[in-house]
Amino acid sequence: MEKKTYPEYSIHYPLLLTTFMKRPARVYPNEIGVVYRNHITGKYYRFTWLEWYHRTCRLANLLQSLGIKPGKPGVLGDRVATLALNTHRHFELYFAVPCSGAVLHPINIRLAQDHIIYTINHAEDSVIFFDDTLLELVEGIYDKIKDTVKKFVYMSDNPGLPTTKIKNLYEYEVLLAKESDEFEWPHLHEDNYASLCYTTGTTGLPKGAMFTHRALYLQTLHLIAHASFINDPSYALLGENIVFLMITPLYHVHAWCAPFIYGFLAAKLVLPGTFTVEGFCELVQTEKVTDTAVVPTILALLVEYEELDQYNLSSLTYVRVGGGALPLGLKAKVEKKIPGFSATSGYGMTETAPTTVRSFVKKYMIDWPKERLDEVRVKTGLPIPGIEVEVVDENGKSVPHDNKTLGQIVIRGPWVIEKYFKNPEKTAEVWYDGWFHTGDVAKVDEDDFIIIADRMKDVIRSGSEMIPTVLLENLATMANFVLEAAIVGVPDEVWGEKPLALIKLIANSNKTEDDFIEFLKVEGVDKGKITKWMLPKLVAIVDEVPKTSVGKYNKREIRRNIRNYLDIAKSIT
Amino acid sequence: MEKKTYPEYSIHYPLLLTTFMKRPARVYPNEIGVVYRNHITGKYYRFTWLEWYHRTCRLANLLQSLGIKPGKPGVLGDRVATLALNTHRHFELYFAVPCSGAVLHPINIRLAQDHIIYTINHAEDSVIFFDDTLLELVEGIYDKIKDTVKKFVYMSDNPGLPTTKIKNLYEYEVLLAKESDEFEWPHLHEDNYASLCYTTGTTGLPKGAMFTHRALYLQTLHLIAHASFINDPSYALLGENIVFLMITPLYHVHAWCAPFIYGFLAAKLVLPGTFTVEGFCELVQTEKVTDTAVVPTILALLVEYEELDQYNLSSLTYVRVGGGALPLGLKAKVEKKIPGFSATSGYGMTETAPTTVRSFVKKYMIDWPKERLDEVRVKTGLPIPGIEVEVVDENGKSVPHDNKTLGQIVIRGPWVIEKYFKNPEKTAEVWYDGWFHTGDVAKVDEDDFIIIADRMKDVIRSGSEMIPTVLLENLATMANFVLEAAIVGVPDEVWGEKPLALIKLIANSNKTEDDFIEFLKVEGVDKGKITKWMLPKLVAIVDEVPKTSVGKYNKREIRRNIRNYLDIAKSIT
Repeated sequence: MEKKTYPEYSIHYPLLLTTFMKRPARVYPNEIGVVYRNHITGKYYRFTWLEWYHRTCRLANLLQSLGIKPGKPGVLGDRVATLALNTHRHFELYFAVPCSGAVLHPINIRLAQDHIIYTINHAEDSVIFFDDTLLELVEGIYDKIKDTVKKFVYMSDNPGLPTTKIKNLYEYEVLLAKESDEFEWPHLHEDNYASLCYTTGTTGLPKGAMFTHRALYLQTLHLIAHASFINDPSYALLGENIVFLMITPLYHVHAWCAPFIYGFLAAKLVLPGTFTVEGFCELVQTEKVTDTAVVPTILALLVEYEELDQYNLSSLTYVRVGGGALPLGLKAKVEKKIPGFSATSGYGMTETAPTTVRSFVKKYMIDWPKERLDEVRVKTGLPIPGIEVEVVDENGKSVPHDNKTLGQIVIRGPWVIEKYFKNPEKTAEVWYDGWFHTGDVAKVDEDDFIIIADRMKDVIRSGSEMIPTVLLENLATMANFVLEAAIVGVPDEVWGEKPLALIKLIANSNKTEDDFIEFLKVEGVDKGKITKWMLPKLVAIVDEVPKTSVGKYNKREIRRNIRNYLDIAKSIT
Repeated sequence: MEKKTYPEYSIHYPLLLTTFMKRPARVYPNEIGVVYRNHITGKYYRFTWLEWYHRTCRLANLLQSLGIKPGKPGVLGDRVATLALNTHRHFELYFAVPCSGAVLHPINIRLAQDHIIYTINHAEDSVIFFDDTLLELVEGIYDKIKDTVKKFVYMSDNPGLPTTKIKNLYEYEVLLAKESDEFEWPHLHEDNYASLCYTTGTTGLPKGAMFTHRALYLQTLHLIAHASFINDPSYALLGENIVFLMITPLYHVHAWCAPFIYGFLAAKLVLPGTFTVEGFCELVQTEKVTDTAVVPTILALLVEYEELDQYNLSSLTYVRVGGGALPLGLKAKVEKKIPGFSATSGYGMTETAPTTVRSFVKKYMIDWPKERLDEVRVKTGLPIPGIEVEVVDENGKSVPHDNKTLGQIVIRGPWVIEKYFKNPEKTAEVWYDGWFHTGDVAKVDEDDFIIIADRMKDVIRSGSEMIPTVLLENLATMANFVLEAAIVGVPDEVWGEKPLALIKLIANSNKTEDDFIEFLKVEGVDKGKITKWMLPKLVAIVDEVPKTSVGKYNKREIRRNIRNYLDIAKSIT
């Protein structure tokens, strides 16, 4: 019988990553689209968009040859895991796997080994594609995952397989060469699962966040559209002329959506393997990188790099900062070092794919003085249009916009996960009353900007006072002599808890613990940003603040070694 | 039982116009968002976004009071029709009706009266909201629609109801004043129908194109995102700083998506009632309009307006041209008159909501000379990312990209209608083989640009040659002495058909029919754009080329009066 209508080609046309993948090869087949630099050998590998597309087609055929099965709405396809850095091969996997109907599981290589093993077995990964540089890691976990993982694919710039105990090991480039460079991409349903990303599990086992094609498509599209909305010269457009250096690892929540955004845009993507300051500077100079996205700690590394001045970084005009609040002090330091550099901040989490909030200058602010605008730009921000973000009290009521009252950030929208993979208990902990509960504490100012204050579990309770540590940390790093600052609560007989500050000073600083507290008094207490009750009672000057695998302050680690820090801390009276 | 997951607030979060409507009042509650100027009295009416939102809430309450029922996926809600110009009230209806679950039917007031009556009865409109200026029209059709339409709402800047035979007549502002300015907007399904737009029916009865919230949301979002993609200085961003003059009537396919785009952006919207050259110039000057969208014939009116120089139009930087190809000659003329003006062209139809193709400069072209870039910008263009547009031969195979071979434009994507309202036969005529068939003929050039050549039914068949009339017309208006040119086929004993050109010269031109043909020879035949077989055999210089209700050349009308044109036409040998 002849078909009467085509909902799947009209109003139910599926929102698929396939649409993003196909575009560059159609629009700019002969332009260099993907550049990979091996961070060890320093060698460059360049691909036109058509070459990249053909390799991705080969990979899709290869997945079929390996027996990888597609899923359907509600049922995950086979899981294909990656243990890989930011290479062109990893980028190929980012499209070939989901667009052929399977589920991509990018493993966070910086998780504890036990957690890596846990996620592989929990995800039931069928195949793992891994980099040559991570061979040792795979060998180390092999015995505990070999019952789950049926096949291993070795990715390297050099031909040949290593001598190893790993069975069923294949060579990526050899397999690819055997396949056709055409592939009939399936017209999937948009509710097909595309990716499975595990949380870093700082408070327990990692949880698996599942994303559909629709969720990732809609996040990408809203982010690009939002870039057009805004009237803030420091807020970069997402346009095809960008040269984007992808620093954020592809194993961190889709590298903040970068493969999808820049793929769809057909903007040139520069892949550095892993971040090194030298590699960063060379690639910016060589490829004329215009945009990048980093965590604040990477900015701190750049500021400290002594040979920074020897590179021409003038093409770099825009840096997106995420994975932690951007301290204003750090921002100022980077702007001084890299002319033309500008940055805004944002907020999100694994469960939200990740971006949900971005800071930008509202149109009635545009004539404010630069200092005031900079303060706006480092606020956590406003919801991306298309997603709902509120800060609510314990009864689920929005807190007043008074720049003071704290509440929990709750979110809902098309790119928030519906549930964790095989974990209904954890799902029920976050999803109730029609909102996803982030566990993050924030306040809202008079202009409707959300300002993150803390993780709920990190808030210090001192007497009847709540001391929001992230708020304090951000204030602390506004001091031009402070590079990093982490605040944790330590037990106190009278108050229950009292705040301890760990601070890392800039090189060759002769500032003291008292100078630090004096700064907080003048810039914080006197200006009404904090109360005097919030001032740290202990300050320890340290060489390094411990960080998690994604570059955030590792407060669990700090608490574990709290004795050492208390030993060197100065008591403030 | 407690809910476990919330698909409707996560991965199935519905794509609703409600999201667009709510945003401006949240982001810019106190900024003037909507300006309406009554084109008869010249009086201005201004609303902040919060005021506009409150009026829209009142209207939603009013619709409930009138007994309007919402629909559900697959089942249309009650149809609410409008017979109205571009006023703030019409803009309020554009959101209050669909966002409360009913279906908006904006009636094209320029249709033949019989067709207006037909669409009202075919749509089974429950209520009609109409402007005071259109009272006579409503009275004229009243007897033939009163069995269908239960209620009439009279919209006017002045208080009081007119004396009329229309029963069940209510006063918009009086009803609005009675309602609450809060409304609990339903969390609809995205497949709820939002609008019903009828085609102009040049070849038969109008057909009803039905759009869901999802379709309109996705078109809007893709159009905004696309504006960010492009590296063409003449391609305007869709940003919040725009002041948009909405010339395209709201009764023409959602005014090309403008209410949704500029609503979501929270950009200032300027509503002129109806287009007048004086009103256009005054509003641009007074409101510092930056962007507008027009059909080519309106550009022609502006060029002819003698007092144009007396206005300050310097704020106007961008004009989107649609509803017909943009003749390069006309573009050049306007650019001369309005400094800073730039324009690109596009393509779409009622059934595609409408925009599917836009012209822009690809990144490897950016250094081409201006003349060559202008030629690119007036080409029909490239598909909006996210929609598939191909030009295919009779076997459904894509034509070669040789700038020569003609084929039919076929489309599929998330904002193409699935079917016509109550019209399976017409649906089957356009939807087959998995593509929507537009009935438009085009070629594709080496850069993958689609160049529209003709409507299939307008192509002239002369011997074994196909003569594409739109292609010829566009070439013709590149002559600086030609303002308008329409080509139709007339019977010929030898060739079957031969081309007749109707041309309108610029004011005070002394050019002749032979000059016209000479121009086509030099610019067309000699440069390989047309063959000599395509040259018109007859040329008639006319005062006016007949146009349809949407400003396109009315070839049906020309054929009806063909005798008169043949009488004045000069034969070319």
